[in-house]
Amino acid sequence: MTLWGVFFSEVIGTAILIVLGVGVVANAVFPKNNGYEGGNLMINFGWGIGVLAGVYAAYKSGGHLNPAVTLGIWASGAKEFVPGIQVDATSIAVYIVAQFIGAFIGAVVAWAAYKKQFDERGDAPSLVFSTGPLIPSVAWNLVTEIIGTFILLFGALSFGAWNGGKGTILEAIPVALLVVGIGASLGGPTGYAINPARDLGPRLAHAILPIPHKDSNNWGYAWIPVVGPIIGGILGGLVFHWYSS
Amino acid sequence: MTLWGVFFSEVIGTAILIVLGVGVVANAVFPKNNGYEGGNLMINFGWGIGVLAGVYAAYKSGGHLNPAVTLGIWASGAKEFVPGIQVDATSIAVYIVAQFIGAFIGAVVAWAAYKKQFDERGDAPSLVFSTGPLIPSVAWNLVTEIIGTFILLFGALSFGAWNGGKGTILEAIPVALLVVGIGASLGGPTGYAINPARDLGPRLAHAILPIPHKDSNNWGYAWIPVVGPIIGGILGGLVFHWYSS
Amino acid sequence: MTLWGVFFSEVIGTAILIVLGVGVVANAVFPKNNGYEGGNLMINFGWGIGVLAGVYAAYKSGGHLNPAVTLGIWASGAKEFVPGIQVDATSIAVYIVAQFIGAFIGAVVAWAAYKKQFDERGDAPSLVFSTGPLIPSVAWNLVTEIIGTFILLFGALSFGAWNGGKGTILEAIPVALLVVGIGASLGGPTGYAINPARDLGPRLAHAILPIPHKDSNNWGYAWIPVVGPIIGGILGGLVFHWYSS
Amino acid sequence: MTLWGVFFSEVIGTAILIVLGVGVVANAVFPKNNGYEGGNLMINFGWGIGVLAGVYAAYKSGGHLNPAVTLGIWASGAKEFVPGIQVDATSIAVYIVAQFIGAFIGAVVAWAAYKKQFDERGDAPSLVFSTGPLIPSVAWNLVTEIIGTFILLFGALSFGAWNGGKGTILEAIPVALLVVGIGASLGGPTGYAINPARDLGPRLAHAILPIPHKDSNNWGYAWIPVVGPIIGGILGGLVFHWYSS
Repeated sequence: MTLWGVFFSEVIGTAILIVLGVGVVANAVFPKNNGYEGGNLMINFGWGIGVLAGVYAAYKSGGHLNPAVTLGIWASGAKEFVPGIQVDATSIAVYIVAQFIGAFIGAVVAWAAYKKQFDERGDAPSLVFSTGPLIPSVAWNLVTEIIGTFILLFGALSFGAWNGGKGTILEAIPVALLVVGIGASLGGPTGYAINPARDLGPRLAHAILPIPHKDSNNWGYAWIPVVGPIIGGILGGLVFHWYSS
Repeated sequence: MTLWGVFFSEVIGTAILIVLGVGVVANAVFPKNNGYEGGNLMINFGWGIGVLAGVYAAYKSGGHLNPAVTLGIWASGAKEFVPGIQVDATSIAVYIVAQFIGAFIGAVVAWAAYKKQFDERGDAPSLVFSTGPLIPSVAWNLVTEIIGTFILLFGALSFGAWNGGKGTILEAIPVALLVVGIGASLGGPTGYAINPARDLGPRLAHAILPIPHKDSNNWGYAWIPVVGPIIGGILGGLVFHWYSS
Repeated sequence: MTLWGVFFSEVIGTAILIVLGVGVVANAVFPKNNGYEGGNLMINFGWGIGVLAGVYAAYKSGGHLNPAVTLGIWASGAKEFVPGIQVDATSIAVYIVAQFIGAFIGAVVAWAAYKKQFDERGDAPSLVFSTGPLIPSVAWNLVTEIIGTFILLFGALSFGAWNGGKGTILEAIPVALLVVGIGASLGGPTGYAINPARDLGPRLAHAILPIPHKDSNNWGYAWIPVVGPIIGGILGGLVFHWYSS
Repeated sequence: MTLWGVFFSEVIGTAILIVLGVGVVANAVFPKNNGYEGGNLMINFGWGIGVLAGVYAAYKSGGHLNPAVTLGIWASGAKEFVPGIQVDATSIAVYIVAQFIGAFIGAVVAWAAYKKQFDERGDAPSLVFSTGPLIPSVAWNLVTEIIGTFILLFGALSFGAWNGGKGTILEAIPVALLVVGIGASLGGPTGYAINPARDLGPRLAHAILPIPHKDSNNWGYAWIPVVGPIIGGILGGLVFHWYSS
């Protein structure tokens, strides 16, 4: 595998994740939709199946789709992401840049799928794109994101270990179910970003896209779903490294 | 495998898909049902499990059940659909004709299962059979169907690639979950046909069946869930071909 | 395997199926429950996971749990149910008797789990145990049960064929998902018995158990969820036999 | 494997189970959450996926996470829990102590994730942590817990037997689905502890944590979700031992 292969793989996989993830929120939030008020479990399944399809699509790069996953795998002591791709600053940068580009593209595509719904509604589409806290609190919102991402990484790494693998290539079905579960169980307070690209890419798309009557991008909160998942992912990788060795 | 084998396989598999798919909508829409107002996620699962059962049942032909899938596999550069069946105009025609016949039969069977419910209700059974937009717009409804079918094809082809396969035989469980997810995430605006046979076959059945107080077949919209999925499926196959080679 | 092994296997597996199946209905129907009004999809998952656990538990006999499955496998032309157990009148009788005994035991156990809820409520517990039509019609209720069971058998047999097996030992996870889907898609009109033992065993239990203020056992309807599934199962087996040969 | 390896494995796995399990209840119960009133099926999936992630994470010890599972495996006549760990009083004690510690830690972590929600709400957070009966009855609440845990053990042991294994290492996906199903089907009357550590650990955490306006710990009920699951688990192991031999 080449770094260009990794790049396109992560762009495509993350874009698919975000199309399905942002899409399911749009479906549940905008009234003129078949899935309007479809419930939190439907939203959790939308994100989980977004991970399923994205991880499979990104089969060339191991299906990270998330800077916290890439950094968590680095922290777990892996030597290669996929055969031929060493874990180093260059490859990590390629993964993360590709994930942000893919997330931005995915948000634009989801917006296109729901173009008429975005045009019709006159308030608050920002929550379709990015996350926000129901009770704002810098410290505790960070804690919630750290816990969710720690469990994502520990789970993803242990799925690989269970099967005798190295934990660097995600197992799509259990990871997808885990994302359903993290949404159901830890998505209450902050909307479970657990992925810096998932949150910042679509937030930027909301800022740029020609949506009528846009609401705030809430840039003051935007660093929390970046920093929290990075901390949680690295901690998850480190603890798994200690635990599995 | 012979072309007759392919023909019966696709007829049976598509019929099973449509019995379960049209059935779940009937269950949710007509009041005298155990599943009345059972929610969008229940409908998504009905369609997804319809794909699961239909793909397995169509094991002789690779379980396409959908002209967009057949054309997408063609666009992806496959040489054979299943061992012994070359990808050419004849085999493609057999797949597609069988899918439309199967979809029509499936719609009739679903109508039979809900005969008393159809008889009792006096309005708008057409949405049980075929899809329609909540906000009509030729351009954007097409876009929604193209995006949904692109992801269906890209996903289905990558499930095969992940396992080292050729991507011409569908992996039933991930494809079924993907259909649940596309419904949850992209089914809002147009009801996610993502399959010309799924929409046109039952639409024709609605036009022909002896249902009292029928509403409009909405023939003016009928070309969109045919053309959109074909475009999306071929694009998905082409992009996957570029990506995977 | 011996016939006694088959007998205990089917008793235990069918009992587990019915504990979880009758249990989920009790949970949704009686007000003093955590799952009160939990929705149709929850009920479908309860039955589907009942099949999952029951099929695995009945690993000695192939996990039929249902006279319609046993008769459908016979109709499909199988020579052995499991290694050492020929398909003949004796073995079929052992399977079916065991299934009815298991279903009765399962209904009693589910009643015990919900004893206080049954005691408290004063009306209509019969629908917790057995099925009934929302719009009574001998002909069309039969049709609904025949269609549902046909798809159960065709699906179950094709899951085995897909994997190169003989279709006589059920694949637990796809069959469980299929039962979720048949409930979502075809459970509306009659409550999807699709299994004579599932319906008649608990109906008998309702008639015998010391439940205060019992309602009617609806014996006039009781033959439909017996005869319909048997017809559907045998048809499913016959058509699969023709199709797969 | 060493006993220290088992210890950390069960602590981590049980903690992950309880973070996701207690978390999903908090999400559904406290109003300022994305999952508020998300429904019983969402709660069942939260616990089921908690088991999925916890069992995988505890891959060194076989993923028991539950004293009733450890004792049920002992009762089933197993000689080793995992290679190198004999079934004896010492190893059983290590498993059980680790499970209680893990459950306590998991409850504290879930509380941290929902800290602001716990602070805001002024009544009855105890049901987020531990279970309780909707209709109190010592005898029948015990019966419900015994039945649920019996099925958990019988199912878990048969998943292993189906695959030709020894039944001492849990199969994560079917066990997770089974826990979804036991919750849907048998969780009505008592909230399905089916695990002494799951109930007592978080109950203790509720008693100790600095939650404003705490309600009763309901210590009078606390022995039932300990004794019932132990009885049910041992019975499940014994009956499976008789059945499978």
